[in-house]
Amino acid sequence: MKPRPAHEWQTTTWFNTPEPLDLERLRGQVVVLHAFQMLCPGCVAHGIPQAQRVAEIFKGAPLTVVGLHTVFEHHEAMGLESLRAFLHEYRVRFPVGVDAPGQDGDPMPRTMRAYAMQGTPTTLLIDAQGRLRRQVFGVHDDLLLGAEIGTLLAEAPGRFDATGTTTASVSDPCADSSRGAV
Amino acid sequence: MKPRPAHEWQTTTWFNTPEPLDLERLRGQVVVLHAFQMLCPGCVAHGIPQAQRVAEIFKGAPLTVVGLHTVFEHHEAMGLESLRAFLHEYRVRFPVGVDAPGQDGDPMPRTMRAYAMQGTPTTLLIDAQGRLRRQVFGVHDDLLLGAEIGTLLAEAPGRFDATGTTTASVSDPCADSSRGAV
Amino acid sequence: MKPRPAHEWQTTTWFNTPEPLDLERLRGQVVVLHAFQMLCPGCVAHGIPQAQRVAEIFKGAPLTVVGLHTVFEHHEAMGLESLRAFLHEYRVRFPVGVDAPGQDGDPMPRTMRAYAMQGTPTTLLIDAQGRLRRQVFGVHDDLLLGAEIGTLLAEAPGRFDATGTTTASVSDPCADSSRGAV
Amino acid sequence: MKPRPAHEWQTTTWFNTPEPLDLERLRGQVVVLHAFQMLCPGCVAHGIPQAQRVAEIFKGAPLTVVGLHTVFEHHEAMGLESLRAFLHEYRVRFPVGVDAPGQDGDPMPRTMRAYAMQGTPTTLLIDAQGRLRRQVFGVHDDLLLGAEIGTLLAEAPGRFDATGTTTASVSDPCADSSRGAV
Repeated sequence: MKPRPAHEWQTTTWFNTPEPLDLERLRGQVVVLHAFQMLCPGCVAHGIPQAQRVAEIFKGAPLTVVGLHTVFEHHEAMGLESLRAFLHEYRVRFPVGVDAPGQDGDPMPRTMRAYAMQGTPTTLLIDAQGRLRRQVFGVHDDLLLGAEIGTLLAEAPGRFDATGTTTASVSDPCADSSRGAV
Repeated sequence: MKPRPAHEWQTTTWFNTPEPLDLERLRGQVVVLHAFQMLCPGCVAHGIPQAQRVAEIFKGAPLTVVGLHTVFEHHEAMGLESLRAFLHEYRVRFPVGVDAPGQDGDPMPRTMRAYAMQGTPTTLLIDAQGRLRRQVFGVHDDLLLGAEIGTLLAEAPGRFDATGTTTASVSDPCADSSRGAV
Repeated sequence: MKPRPAHEWQTTTWFNTPEPLDLERLRGQVVVLHAFQMLCPGCVAHGIPQAQRVAEIFKGAPLTVVGLHTVFEHHEAMGLESLRAFLHEYRVRFPVGVDAPGQDGDPMPRTMRAYAMQGTPTTLLIDAQGRLRRQVFGVHDDLLLGAEIGTLLAEAPGRFDATGTTTASVSDPCADSSRGAV
Repeated sequence: MKPRPAHEWQTTTWFNTPEPLDLERLRGQVVVLHAFQMLCPGCVAHGIPQAQRVAEIFKGAPLTVVGLHTVFEHHEAMGLESLRAFLHEYRVRFPVGVDAPGQDGDPMPRTMRAYAMQGTPTTLLIDAQGRLRRQVFGVHDDLLLGAEIGTLLAEAPGRFDATGTTTASVSDPCADSSRGAV
């Protein structure tokens, strides 16, 4: 299936960015869009921490992580003040846009409707040419998300080679002590 | 740094394969080599489960996961019968070679020595042209390993696009119930 | 140190109970009081799931789990409507009281102040005679919390013997297959 | 059901103790007996780490953790040298006895047979009077195991009160910053 241009998002407010973001301005960057609700357990336990790790790990790459607060239920419980406190407490540092309210009483906000998202969390991958390449509803596997990101970065102009990154390897290795301290 | 050809491994026995594997025969495939010891806690808790998930997730891709049992300590405790039972109990299904004993009383086996590995687990990524592209000592991050695999697959002939894979998304999403059952 | 009677809590509203709870009425029961804030990451990831498991595991015992929403920061973000949605989304079924606002502009609510809690999550254990036996700030260890509960239940009139409970044992055992299916 | 005296274990070798242990000598102590096999995934991932945490948390209590290596399959893979390396690599510090080989070709060792264990891991709780109070096959829940231990300690002479222990509380609390540094 031929990838189609990603819909521009429609937002009312932004956090963690001096000015609103739009897809046009992010051309040339791989965009990882994380659509979430602050009171959705799967977003809080899995989706947001994953998006935070993506932002951290690919800091030097032509990649931008964008959060989108797509509230489609309990609207009164997830207003701007609540979201602001949430982002502070969970130390979310990447830009987060608030999806514009649905039209004509639609409980689903506009960007969520335009992408026909099924719920939250939803992860969208948009390539450097602004085309939607992947849309996943639910918790997304780290290895697979990594591979998708690696694929899109390999295509991007200025090619980023993930195999050239520095690794944070961690915990519990069995070192060859005959080599001295590791 | 220009990637160099990967050293051929030197092994004495293989499990989970009708015949010994060698790098020549795997040309055209991305090779994820997982060097481990069956009594290394970091391998058992992290490295081997990760290698198993890689083998599962990239089943349709030109990618082969290979295990290498690189025993450099407690040799008497990790012989063939012990390894056989270990692979059975932990349901390791990918091919596993046993690294050849070190020369002249070297406690470190030959392939481990040739690659100057620091211990276990060590993950090696070899591209479709047989070149070593990555060597990581310790537990490797899933997102980063995924990105490296995605990069190498994107380069490979016949290009595999990770964004075209099927996703197993899991647990705890908040569904838009107005759409009916998900 | 001689245990002292626990302070009565002061609350404004209750969820998940037909009528307000008070300590007097819970005499004869071990009370596990979980003080939390709905936007406190440690409460959401650890404290509340632990309180839910306590409520589930000790269902047949003379023990009551009580939640207390002790908001001392971001007050505007954690009002009643937000808490109601939170309890629904996280499937919290045990009774939850809302701690009464602090006096004279005190940001810390009254029960939290009376117990000199340092923050959230805080776990209080009150014995069947209504005496405070334990107050732990931060994530509490499951084994240790279990032991404390076991101690208080063993003292209680009508003595509950935890060793007589039914166990849900789970996952990954190595069965003796010579015995037939397990 | 009236608790019955626990069967004395029958062992061939011990690790991590200057001399063999027996139940008679442990009278007055609560005994947590952890029966395992070094190549049983559920033991390695859950049972042994749990037994290690019990040993650590109840260090000051009249409680002894004892390991029992009950090999009923892959006997040739789990001999003494393998077990010795395993205990070293996994930093098991509590005493571990090796269950005596079964009689007349019985693949199941003697203590395992005497207790009619169904497999590994199996956790046995023996009270200070030497009576078997609990036998759980499979991974045992931390909260419930804690409660059972708390119950048996509360009964023991010299009564140990778990609510008097020091707590290691950890990670992610929301502190009341108006109180100054915590």
